[in-house]
Amino acid sequence: MQKPSIPQGTRDFGPAQVARRQYIFSVIRRTFETFGYAPLETPTLENLSVLTGKYGDEGDQLLFKVLNSGNFLVKERRGEITPLLTAEDLDAGPKVVLPKIAEKGLRYDLTVPFARYVAMNRGTLTFPFRRYQMQPVWRADRPQRGRYREFWQCDADVVGTDSLLCEAEIVLMMSRVFTELGLHDFTIKINHRGVLRNIYQALGGEGQEADLFVAIDKLDKIGRDGVSKELLEKGFAEPTIDTLFALLGVEGDFEEKLRRLLAGFVTAGVEPDGTRPDEDSSDEDDELAYYRGLKELVEVHALLQASGFKQFDRLEFDPTLARGLSYYTGCIFEVKINNVAMGSVSGGGRYDNLTGSFGLPGVSGVGFSFGVDRIYDCLESLDLFTETGETPTRCLITNFDQASGRAALPLLAELRAAGIPAELYPDAGKLQKQFKYADAKGIPLVIVLGPEELAAGVAKVKIMKTGEEKVLPLGEVVGALTV
Amino acid sequence: MQKPSIPQGTRDFGPAQVARRQYIFSVIRRTFETFGYAPLETPTLENLSVLTGKYGDEGDQLLFKVLNSGNFLVKERRGEITPLLTAEDLDAGPKVVLPKIAEKGLRYDLTVPFARYVAMNRGTLTFPFRRYQMQPVWRADRPQRGRYREFWQCDADVVGTDSLLCEAEIVLMMSRVFTELGLHDFTIKINHRGVLRNIYQALGGEGQEADLFVAIDKLDKIGRDGVSKELLEKGFAEPTIDTLFALLGVEGDFEEKLRRLLAGFVTAGVEPDGTRPDEDSSDEDDELAYYRGLKELVEVHALLQASGFKQFDRLEFDPTLARGLSYYTGCIFEVKINNVAMGSVSGGGRYDNLTGSFGLPGVSGVGFSFGVDRIYDCLESLDLFTETGETPTRCLITNFDQASGRAALPLLAELRAAGIPAELYPDAGKLQKQFKYADAKGIPLVIVLGPEELAAGVAKVKIMKTGEEKVLPLGEVVGALTV
Repeated sequence: MQKPSIPQGTRDFGPAQVARRQYIFSVIRRTFETFGYAPLETPTLENLSVLTGKYGDEGDQLLFKVLNSGNFLVKERRGEITPLLTAEDLDAGPKVVLPKIAEKGLRYDLTVPFARYVAMNRGTLTFPFRRYQMQPVWRADRPQRGRYREFWQCDADVVGTDSLLCEAEIVLMMSRVFTELGLHDFTIKINHRGVLRNIYQALGGEGQEADLFVAIDKLDKIGRDGVSKELLEKGFAEPTIDTLFALLGVEGDFEEKLRRLLAGFVTAGVEPDGTRPDEDSSDEDDELAYYRGLKELVEVHALLQASGFKQFDRLEFDPTLARGLSYYTGCIFEVKINNVAMGSVSGGGRYDNLTGSFGLPGVSGVGFSFGVDRIYDCLESLDLFTETGETPTRCLITNFDQASGRAALPLLAELRAAGIPAELYPDAGKLQKQFKYADAKGIPLVIVLGPEELAAGVAKVKIMKTGEEKVLPLGEVVGALTV
Repeated sequence: MQKPSIPQGTRDFGPAQVARRQYIFSVIRRTFETFGYAPLETPTLENLSVLTGKYGDEGDQLLFKVLNSGNFLVKERRGEITPLLTAEDLDAGPKVVLPKIAEKGLRYDLTVPFARYVAMNRGTLTFPFRRYQMQPVWRADRPQRGRYREFWQCDADVVGTDSLLCEAEIVLMMSRVFTELGLHDFTIKINHRGVLRNIYQALGGEGQEADLFVAIDKLDKIGRDGVSKELLEKGFAEPTIDTLFALLGVEGDFEEKLRRLLAGFVTAGVEPDGTRPDEDSSDEDDELAYYRGLKELVEVHALLQASGFKQFDRLEFDPTLARGLSYYTGCIFEVKINNVAMGSVSGGGRYDNLTGSFGLPGVSGVGFSFGVDRIYDCLESLDLFTETGETPTRCLITNFDQASGRAALPLLAELRAAGIPAELYPDAGKLQKQFKYADAKGIPLVIVLGPEELAAGVAKVKIMKTGEEKVLPLGEVVGALTV
């Protein structure tokens, strides 16, 4: 007899875990909906033609591919059966074999399916279109602590507007979710791809912009020395790297960093790439207007102030924030929980051409994502979950013998009609076993209803946590429990 | 540019559909939890060793199989790469090729993963264990109206007890869910595998029991003539078939049918297979006791009466109910909605050896399932959904120009803090376009807050459905909307 198991990197969620996860989902869902985001769900299976080429070569490798159904080795047409695969195909390798035997794959993220949905439904959607999506995704990554092959994403995106109000609202939503969850020690990092581009230009445009972003992205992991080494290898000159770290290392609060970067760009002679801000949108120097990245960050900051945002101490302008994914073009975001050793728990940014690869160019959007599995681990590490039992049951009625078990049925029905999750222990027998059951499941109340109690028209209600017992007339039990 | 599409038999659910589906899920979830069932979630991917052989040959065909990740054509060990597939394997066909390139598949139902979970966690679970599970499953079936390749099941099972209270509670839960959903014209059909076995014995035990069940199962679709023809082909004699239809066709209410079948079994000399019921469990003739199936149906009926069940007119004892799946051993159930042309929307039954194939024999359980996709279609056919907009937003604030848009931010924050889903139209511009947006999305309230209103310290609130407009002091808007 083979011992049953589940695939590497996947998990069963038992009752207590599901309850905790539902709690996280509900906080996120309520926030998304309060901000006007509408739910969308897309299929688990997508055509590989939709998924392939959207996540880079590495992503293509990590896609789970689903074998075509039926006899995937042959093609049948008008009763004629021809083999699809030859021995030569096998020699040629998976790139040749794969398209012949698999045309579907598992959802890899929620962004590409969203873009596919928008492109498919462009004729009927009303823009700006705000949607949220909370579904699992699958990646054939090597499993490790905090990294699963099946994990959940909660995305919210708005497409069809380039209003910076959307960026400000992302900060508001992030702050609201982590505050509601009790994860107060968070930092929302914000940067702008335009700022990174200006930094690149300030270095004289040496080497490749992408190489620079990729290297900066690793700063957290490999440190300044590691990044320097990588950039030297990529052909950047030593003094250039010094300039880079001077710019990345600007100090001060949000506005001071902006001002210092501005000075740096001006000194380095970086060509302005933005327009002058409106009179009322900013009190900053007019020069700020000329760099799109800096200007938009000022604007987002101002919108947050106007919205009454109170947590500026948790919002950090971080010029080193790069976010690897290449499709971002404007503001980028990332959230860390400072008192837990854990990667980012939320992130996102603006992209200018999400649906371009599906034949709908020029749709600008901005979105972000919560990583539910990591948030779960943070809450658990910090012991922030309220106690959750192994069952929703609030109340167990004991089953002394067949007659009193049956006599308990009206009370059971009454409890449930009042919305109180309740059970009658299904088998008549020893009370000790039934109390053990209630204890193991974390059921808070046990109602003893044996022949004696029934004869007296009462029920004994025991509060499991304290051991306290009350004898109540049968007709008053439900009322006492619903107070 | 390729036009994007989704795989056959899968669906996108837009905002209104998700809201409606969530409503169905919430009714079912609340019912399950009120009856003490605890949530479980299992992975989408299961090992094929767990899935294969559990659903019959046809089921094995319909499993979606997932290609092994990485280079699935070779095996790598200590740097040595050996091909996994040969040209001979290709000739031998999918049965030889499949196990070499795929070891995982997609969840096919919720029962087998549940059995696998119980077997894996036997040491830590407290029995009786009541769980519910609401997740999608995948079958490579030919898609058609009402049949999808990705669809949702909502299962509740209790294992570790053979108390008939569980069967009675299934009827209570079915009745509660359909009543709450407004699907009042339902019929819960109940039968017992023991009754079918007794009927088979009454025919003299000719041919195969399985053949009989399979044929009876088709009665709805192919009628009496079709079933007769099939049984004749299987070697049943004509007079036997007449006896069969006499037994299956017994008329009357629940108890009359029981009595008539009892008489039929006694006349046919069927060997009793049950024990005498307890004195207080039934007022029926003592002979009833001797047939387990009939006895248990009497008992379930009595438990429902004791529970105050009021809908006996919607509970039908149907001796022709067979339910194809072979693992049932006791009571079986099925629900139809009578005023819609639609297959069964719920069903289940008792099984005596769910976890046997995972090395844990002798665990009796009983469970049932709601088919959410069919229930959705019923509610839609009968126009029973309440109106659902394309957004959760209750309130749109217009954006006249940049200054008044920014001046609206405190009101926006106030609305959201009060739990009212609200949006500020993200781009300043023509009000007509913004009203069109609210109309297309089904947003019920629009707040006009332009320079004039701001100067006067008021907001104009328009109720979109009636066209009614109210001018309110800015400070009173949120209060007026939360009343």
